[in-house]
Amino acid sequence: MVRFLVLYTEPNDIEAFENHYREVHIPLAKKLPGLRHYSLSHNTVPIRGGDPYYLVAELDWDSMEEINNAFRSPEERATGEDAGNLERLSPGVHCMIYELEEIL
Amino acid sequence: MVRFLVLYTEPNDIEAFENHYREVHIPLAKKLPGLRHYSLSHNTVPIRGGDPYYLVAELDWDSMEEINNAFRSPEERATGEDAGNLERLSPGVHCMIYELEEIL
Repeated sequence: MVRFLVLYTEPNDIEAFENHYREVHIPLAKKLPGLRHYSLSHNTVPIRGGDPYYLVAELDWDSMEEINNAFRSPEERATGEDAGNLERLSPGVHCMIYELEEIL
Repeated sequence: MVRFLVLYTEPNDIEAFENHYREVHIPLAKKLPGLRHYSLSHNTVPIRGGDPYYLVAELDWDSMEEINNAFRSPEERATGEDAGNLERLSPGVHCMIYELEEIL
């Protein structure tokens, strides 16, 4: 499985961020081709290493090939453009893609 | 589901970190009570927000109650003490716990 992990820092306008995320971004992201699983986590509990992130989004695909196809799709162009709106509200956003090696 | 996410920055001694993680830390962490799923990801691909993390570890429990039980266990005392050894090799480690809200 390949995961796209998005770590949002606390938005400068929480209400605007939440409204935009729920009303605009989720409907766009759910259309991404081959998307298998999508979760959100608010209320992160910090354990080590400073400030927790405000919101963690995880989007999963079956393989690197599938996520590459999704990232070249017209749906991703719309979702990626909209991500710019979220980034203006949460300027420290950090995101990355990685393949999971199952240990247990 | 409740996830414990550990984001390791690049270790100051990669070989020592990898050996310690594989030989000592994984066997300890796998004993944590109630642990349902455990994955590792090297080779993260950065998308936005600066340097990628060197290693992402994800450990999942069924509920906040289950993870709290695990964190109070003797197995966690051993695993947590050992995490100090990894932190000396990867001083910027960032970790947090969060509950997943399923969107898709």
